[in-house]
Amino acid sequence: MHNNEIALQIAGVIRGVVRPSGDAFVPLHEPTFRGREKDYVTECIETGWVSTAGQFVERFELELAAYCGVRRAVAVCNGTAALHTCFIIAGVQPGDEVIIPALTFVATANAVSYAGAIPHFADSEETTLGIDPVKLTEHLEKITEMRDGACYNRETGNRIAAISPMHTFGHPSMLDELLMVANRFNIALVEDAAEALGSDYKGRHCGGFGKINAVSFNGNKVITTGGGGALLTNDDALADRAKHITTTAKLPHRWYYDHDVVGYNYRMPNLNAALGVAQLEQLPGLLEGKRALAMRYAQIFADIPNVNFITEPEHCKSNYWLNALLLDRGSEKELEPILKVTNDAGLMTRPAWRPMHQLPMFTDAPRMNLSVAESLAQRLINIPSSAGLL
Amino acid sequence: MHNNEIALQIAGVIRGVVRPSGDAFVPLHEPTFRGREKDYVTECIETGWVSTAGQFVERFELELAAYCGVRRAVAVCNGTAALHTCFIIAGVQPGDEVIIPALTFVATANAVSYAGAIPHFADSEETTLGIDPVKLTEHLEKITEMRDGACYNRETGNRIAAISPMHTFGHPSMLDELLMVANRFNIALVEDAAEALGSDYKGRHCGGFGKINAVSFNGNKVITTGGGGALLTNDDALADRAKHITTTAKLPHRWYYDHDVVGYNYRMPNLNAALGVAQLEQLPGLLEGKRALAMRYAQIFADIPNVNFITEPEHCKSNYWLNALLLDRGSEKELEPILKVTNDAGLMTRPAWRPMHQLPMFTDAPRMNLSVAESLAQRLINIPSSAGLL
Repeated sequence: MHNNEIALQIAGVIRGVVRPSGDAFVPLHEPTFRGREKDYVTECIETGWVSTAGQFVERFELELAAYCGVRRAVAVCNGTAALHTCFIIAGVQPGDEVIIPALTFVATANAVSYAGAIPHFADSEETTLGIDPVKLTEHLEKITEMRDGACYNRETGNRIAAISPMHTFGHPSMLDELLMVANRFNIALVEDAAEALGSDYKGRHCGGFGKINAVSFNGNKVITTGGGGALLTNDDALADRAKHITTTAKLPHRWYYDHDVVGYNYRMPNLNAALGVAQLEQLPGLLEGKRALAMRYAQIFADIPNVNFITEPEHCKSNYWLNALLLDRGSEKELEPILKVTNDAGLMTRPAWRPMHQLPMFTDAPRMNLSVAESLAQRLINIPSSAGLL
Repeated sequence: MHNNEIALQIAGVIRGVVRPSGDAFVPLHEPTFRGREKDYVTECIETGWVSTAGQFVERFELELAAYCGVRRAVAVCNGTAALHTCFIIAGVQPGDEVIIPALTFVATANAVSYAGAIPHFADSEETTLGIDPVKLTEHLEKITEMRDGACYNRETGNRIAAISPMHTFGHPSMLDELLMVANRFNIALVEDAAEALGSDYKGRHCGGFGKINAVSFNGNKVITTGGGGALLTNDDALADRAKHITTTAKLPHRWYYDHDVVGYNYRMPNLNAALGVAQLEQLPGLLEGKRALAMRYAQIFADIPNVNFITEPEHCKSNYWLNALLLDRGSEKELEPILKVTNDAGLMTRPAWRPMHQLPMFTDAPRMNLSVAESLAQRLINIPSSAGLL
């Protein structure tokens, strides 16, 4: 029999920190509605504007762009749709490769597939949990060649069109270094900032570093629109293009229905944008609550051996979307007992995602050595992280 | 100068029929919220269940299936997503062709493209406005051959994998005849019933005739979820498969994130399903209001020369989603003046969609002779159709 000492200790710590006490079920992340959510949603129904037109969509886009410090935001129906559209706008063509972390939610890789492209998996850097820029550079030096200014994978013959760093659990990736790699190899950078609303990298909000970037407002995110996402960019022409192709590519006319390319029905309905506007108003407070919870966890877990609480990278401010523990190397065998004991105790925890190259539909995709991502996947545990838990 | 006599007469008729009177703007179709919409949406916010899990999604699916007389409904984020998923489930593979009407909204053709397939445009039948089964049969006899039980386009070499009749403005297509064609050539039939919620074909609700079929709840439809759609089927295995691939193809597990195919983030959020449940409760009354409006239009337009009000096909009950006038052949020149005069008068009207083969991204797609669709596109005019107009 395995000794569950660490597992029981961790369950005890979490139960000691979070509300409600007792043995109530504590989800990993649930939304918090303390503002004008009901007012705005009710307003949609009273005015009849619930769908693809309505003032809340525009308002949400303006206020989101202002919050994120970018010129433009384009609201869409979810983060996956946002990322798919980013890749199209960034020039990814069918048959191209897109570099993404192996350790990410499957939506990153799926969005690459929707663009007809092939994910190319990069290894992780252990402090930020994002793509390792040093290892990536070595890999690209080894396998690529430049042709007519574009980067080609010599092993597959495909163009490498984009790189999409994902800010794991809200912790910013090493953007300066990754931008240098992207520039050197002439690869478009698209931030998958799905998890990073409210996170800053060196004083600037995530989602403004690539030409065009994606965020998510799924129900488990820092703020939610039910389902939703947005593209962020400082380029008006790209934003206009994003709006066009996410709204069936209809050309403006009083009555004719002309469309100039294969477009998408990726609109965010006004009903969902109304929720988003109310949630954005609450965001600073929610982030404070999440940070306070993270600091409390950090303090307590400092005393637990073999377990490290992940904190924000240097020069970054993390939204602490999902709090995470990292087991020491050598303690991988504790992962399953910890998951079992905590979930059995009504404290929802989960491991990091299965690395993408281990999923059946991506086993043949190109990749570098992924030893760090594989190791992290055996040692990371997300613990309850809702804003109102403390 | 063109004599605007017919245009002014039509504007006068519409203004005489609809509420509000005076010169208020009358949209083509707006939603009607007279039931428990606010209660249910507020309940989502109060309970915190706004997103991808929550009881309204399941309830909406159950009640929708019951209403439509099918075993199962799977709610998704919009009608385009529903149709895309239908094509995948029906076995459409990249490089296949899918027969769709040339006269349809662009979403039908786009959904074919998302599946990696090629739309193959069919001509319309003038009384139902749907695909002409006789003309289609002649076309298929001429251009196809059967190989190993599958139908191939000899001219392109591609397999013809599916046919998707669309029920134009809510009027059912000639389903019996089209099913015979589909069976004879071994082509899967998928109803694009986006516009047909509340419409019956020979006593059975549309959306239950193909193996798996799509409906829409966009803001301009008979009922709305803000944005939304659903797949309808009598096959539990297909419904389960649809649910799986529209929810990122995640395999059930307490904590592991395993996915077995490239899936989609096509969920309908609980917030939107809540609106849908309330709207479904109102649907019978909304349909009555729409039918009364249509009957009133039919009566009055019977006296206007060169203009025919489109009524439901024989043996069918139409939801009269969008009321439509059809100009006589020879009166095409009246189309533009009618659109201009009515819209200038605040009465929203529009022509049918630009036929798909006339859009730049589909000009090279395979097609039959499309003379009827082309003629209809020059003669059809949609007029204000909201449920509460009379």
